[in-house]
Amino acid sequence: MGEFELLARIRERLPATPAHVLLGSGDDAAVTSTPGATATSVDAVVDGVHFHRSQATLAQIGHKALATALSDLAAMGAAPGEAYVVLGVPSDLDEDDCIDLLDGMLALVETTGTVLAGGDLTRATQLFLAITVVGHAASPDAFVSRAGARPGDALVLTGEVGGAAAGLALLEDPLLERQVPSAASLKARQLEPHPRLGAGRALALAQASAMIDLSDGLTGDAAHIAEQSGVNLRIEGNAVPIATGADTVLAATGEDGLEQALGGGEDYELLAAIPPARLDQARRAVRDAEGIALTTIGEVVAGEGVEIRLPGGGLLKPTRGFDQLT
Amino acid sequence: MGEFELLARIRERLPATPAHVLLGSGDDAAVTSTPGATATSVDAVVDGVHFHRSQATLAQIGHKALATALSDLAAMGAAPGEAYVVLGVPSDLDEDDCIDLLDGMLALVETTGTVLAGGDLTRATQLFLAITVVGHAASPDAFVSRAGARPGDALVLTGEVGGAAAGLALLEDPLLERQVPSAASLKARQLEPHPRLGAGRALALAQASAMIDLSDGLTGDAAHIAEQSGVNLRIEGNAVPIATGADTVLAATGEDGLEQALGGGEDYELLAAIPPARLDQARRAVRDAEGIALTTIGEVVAGEGVEIRLPGGGLLKPTRGFDQLT
Repeated sequence: MGEFELLARIRERLPATPAHVLLGSGDDAAVTSTPGATATSVDAVVDGVHFHRSQATLAQIGHKALATALSDLAAMGAAPGEAYVVLGVPSDLDEDDCIDLLDGMLALVETTGTVLAGGDLTRATQLFLAITVVGHAASPDAFVSRAGARPGDALVLTGEVGGAAAGLALLEDPLLERQVPSAASLKARQLEPHPRLGAGRALALAQASAMIDLSDGLTGDAAHIAEQSGVNLRIEGNAVPIATGADTVLAATGEDGLEQALGGGEDYELLAAIPPARLDQARRAVRDAEGIALTTIGEVVAGEGVEIRLPGGGLLKPTRGFDQLT
Repeated sequence: MGEFELLARIRERLPATPAHVLLGSGDDAAVTSTPGATATSVDAVVDGVHFHRSQATLAQIGHKALATALSDLAAMGAAPGEAYVVLGVPSDLDEDDCIDLLDGMLALVETTGTVLAGGDLTRATQLFLAITVVGHAASPDAFVSRAGARPGDALVLTGEVGGAAAGLALLEDPLLERQVPSAASLKARQLEPHPRLGAGRALALAQASAMIDLSDGLTGDAAHIAEQSGVNLRIEGNAVPIATGADTVLAATGEDGLEQALGGGEDYELLAAIPPARLDQARRAVRDAEGIALTTIGEVVAGEGVEIRLPGGGLLKPTRGFDQLT
């Protein structure tokens, strides 16, 4: 496969570059000029670690890699700006395969208003993508970090959790599909996550004090906010919306369905702390932006750590989870 | 290996974050606020493709990965700003090895004034690094692209070429060391390249009209400027400074030493087009910035492509080279 030839085919497919990106792919660097502040995040996914080529199409792999990177911008309340993509290409991927992967990203580039402004291609033994995304805001304090949650804030969650974990279970054991009619939508939650960029900006405008996207799971990511804000998060397990059928699928794998849904990663919903007086505004804005619910699932109190009250009356005190490099 | 534990060790080693980086590693994204324009470039290197762990220390691998990324900023005339590092960690690398790799980068971070503002760690079967660098300038037109060379411009080169190619030959065949007393410095050119950030800014200030860093080799990279500027580059082979001993080592590998030095990649010197009236200013500024020579090696004329006059009287007309994904 020729690098210049593939690059030429890729450039042909890129939409026209908007005015603030003055020099796109093809020079030593991309040049941008955007007033205000920027939020930058990098994310890498590797075949066999973060996805399996047997379980997803190349377009889905491309989509998800970009979606999970953009989800970090959503968690900052940033407006998406530019994306830069490094693609590690194994020898069994041909040029058309690379274009399929790119097309999965381009669909999301278009719906989110992101500009694919540059990248790099390299040979690799294993397919990998490393994606840098840059988001913008009028000023640095318009971004929402993980560190601002204060006692008295309400704890809110966009959408539903557990769907992506159930989708993964279904991909790994197709016999589980008999358990639920919602199997297709659960698998879509795993394979084609949606970055909550509109909800993130709505929550930032509504003065959310801290925010994170759920990549590791509600229990694990809540612990990040608790630690970085120096507060205790009290969550009512009963109040957490679970994706339809997710607990059934997860229970069928042998462990407690609800606990798995609460701990299961990759839903890419947003968890935020917000002053109660702003709740109504935030709820309306999130519905207007994405047509999804914003649910109050608990509160921020003084202290440390995370406590989740289970429906049976028990208390779940998650740690940050098994510390393993993935 | 624990991801959180390794991240904690990495963060301990990072220098204090300057004022314009408002939120560094550890949140969903890094937040920066810098007026003017930005240049952004991404570069990936993979074990077995761009380096071999048997030939370089981990610190050298880290240094070179960051140096080659920063070299793209040098080629824009940008002031270095932030770097974001993705590290793919194979199972035979332990935590101390990752810290060695990081330390190779941190030394360069310090000498160049770059801020390591974020990153991602992942498991991989093969060691890889994907590095995003962001540079700054007062305005977009302060950057130098590849596309502005005009007939009448002089063609100038920083430093010397051929050293990195000779260094690679020495690493692959240690018996060649007998050929030259400069073997150690040639290997250093291959293993520890230096991004010409000071020279790049000096050339930008001196109104260079086009610039590129020599990653693929003088002949190949000159072709990029010729193509993107729509001009012909005439280079006097005799005028090109060759690293001491490089042609001897390269000739000993069986091919013409000079032609290999002209075509050999990874020197990361800068090739620029510049109006002749600015030559003296540029030469002084490059010497002041980096203590190296700026040599006029040819001129820009109307037409297309690259012509290199060889000392024997022959004419070398390089194409962009063998188009192979590496």
